[in-house]
Amino acid sequence: VAAGKPKRPGEFALIERYFRPLATDPGAFDLIDDAALYAPPRGEELVLTVDTIAAGVHFFADDPPAAIARKALRVNLSDLAAKGATPAAYLMSLALPDGWSEAWVRTFAKGLADDQRRFGISLLGGDTTRASGGLTLTITAIGCVPKGRMVHRAGAKAGDVVFVSGTIGDAALGLGVRLGTVAAPKAAAAYLRDRYLNPQPRTALAPLVRRFANSAMDVSDGLVGDLAHICKASGVGAEIEAGQVPLSRQARAVVAGNRRALGTALTGGDDYEILATVTKSRAGRFAAAARSAGVPVTRIGRIVEGSDPPLVLGPDGRPMAFAGLGHTHF
Amino acid sequence: VAAGKPKRPGEFALIERYFRPLATDPGAFDLIDDAALYAPPRGEELVLTVDTIAAGVHFFADDPPAAIARKALRVNLSDLAAKGATPAAYLMSLALPDGWSEAWVRTFAKGLADDQRRFGISLLGGDTTRASGGLTLTITAIGCVPKGRMVHRAGAKAGDVVFVSGTIGDAALGLGVRLGTVAAPKAAAAYLRDRYLNPQPRTALAPLVRRFANSAMDVSDGLVGDLAHICKASGVGAEIEAGQVPLSRQARAVVAGNRRALGTALTGGDDYEILATVTKSRAGRFAAAARSAGVPVTRIGRIVEGSDPPLVLGPDGRPMAFAGLGHTHF
Repeated sequence: VAAGKPKRPGEFALIERYFRPLATDPGAFDLIDDAALYAPPRGEELVLTVDTIAAGVHFFADDPPAAIARKALRVNLSDLAAKGATPAAYLMSLALPDGWSEAWVRTFAKGLADDQRRFGISLLGGDTTRASGGLTLTITAIGCVPKGRMVHRAGAKAGDVVFVSGTIGDAALGLGVRLGTVAAPKAAAAYLRDRYLNPQPRTALAPLVRRFANSAMDVSDGLVGDLAHICKASGVGAEIEAGQVPLSRQARAVVAGNRRALGTALTGGDDYEILATVTKSRAGRFAAAARSAGVPVTRIGRIVEGSDPPLVLGPDGRPMAFAGLGHTHF
Repeated sequence: VAAGKPKRPGEFALIERYFRPLATDPGAFDLIDDAALYAPPRGEELVLTVDTIAAGVHFFADDPPAAIARKALRVNLSDLAAKGATPAAYLMSLALPDGWSEAWVRTFAKGLADDQRRFGISLLGGDTTRASGGLTLTITAIGCVPKGRMVHRAGAKAGDVVFVSGTIGDAALGLGVRLGTVAAPKAAAAYLRDRYLNPQPRTALAPLVRRFANSAMDVSDGLVGDLAHICKASGVGAEIEAGQVPLSRQARAVVAGNRRALGTALTGGDDYEILATVTKSRAGRFAAAARSAGVPVTRIGRIVEGSDPPLVLGPDGRPMAFAGLGHTHF
């Protein structure tokens, strides 16, 4: 043992101590096999999505380990929710940088365990390896939908009402607060930072998205850019009103009189809210059902014919221009 | 644009140009949606496995891009084959380091395309992001098996014949050649290096593993250590003869008179051959069927009662001792 090298468990001990307890699904075989087994319930199909988060790109290396675990899971669960899928299980690949500690892994696994209970999912399989740089974490999430019922980006129709869940911009402003580029009152700052650190996937909306939405996606790369994705995939345009976009009280405190911050909110990303378009005659019922499910949705505009990028009318009634339509983690 | 910054496509252009053509399965939705859809054929279950390879850990950063692509796919296809599963599709997460080039991605995607054709699989979905260090590539592979027919590590029975496919040790010796720690004649060196760079997953054996094997796994972390995994999972012991372990002509040239190189071959890893145990009365038929399938298998020993680590008898008939039972990429 080299001098000063911390005494740490090996790969197998790490799996046995911290990850095996997470493998509650029988198809995970207690993580002692080379692969997992999964079959969707009768009449259902699997919805699959993969997302990687990397230190210094998607999170800060010194973020709490449980928050990193939650974020990696939740960005994937958010995708599933927007497709109308019920989360079932996930596979995880964890690349640990030099200098990792057992205490870090313990807290990280605790974060996964808490979210497994919250969302009713199981670890199904994984890989643990050394990172070639900072910590990199890849989650492949598996959800289920009744056959033929996955909701797509394509499917928006002229006349549809455009809805978004929760509030928009909190995470982007929270990241700005953290980076020192956005000023916010102290209490608001704490709230916004937390919204960046702890995304809330709108799992409760999944059955309603399936029932009501003509098209949907989750807002991860900025509301305006993501709406543009829906429009492009559906061959339609959209008009939304910035004044209708739901902002938290804390985001409003930042945005008040700061047009640049409003742009950040509308294009900044990491919202993990659901953007959905619904036939006009069913919009009221969708909104009422969402409220009952505990995740309010707000009408922000409508789908129109055409192929132009979405038009965003500002608080002054004039079209807003943005430096970029969205944010990419690339 | 910062001075000297190369002009490169953005994330969406990259996906459209190089990855969309790989998404041949209709459930991939041309990669324009947030998630993929997959349902196993009637009567089948899904076998799922995930593996990450990272620059400087599992491959050299200057390896040919197509070889990196192949390796990432094949280490996963090897897991599927050992479980008796037919490969179907995969999801890929690619974290690109600073300094990536479009030409690199083009050749990388070509490597994926070639292997998709070779193994009859489709890209189903993915994520492209910035790496926090060197290139990191995670593949989640999906295979299919008839219900209840996945082959496990657990299942080996006392009296089983232990088989291994192909030849063992080439890749570990090839890595040694590359690192300058193993000396080899020039032609042998080229062969061994290639075996490290281009694993050959034994997909053709999958149906026979399903039909004949009581237990199986792929040899990725070293033959002796991986056999120990089978023994531990099955609650048995094993005795193998080093002299029976199939070595290539090139490996034999290195190992001749070099007992340390033999140890490297038996414990070094990256073989991606299949280790399987078969009831004695069926062993002959398994070997004949494997030969017909074009992937010869060799008897290397037998499963015994007990719980000791596998006993490896050396060329002199005495038990061999190893510095470590296997290699981990951790």
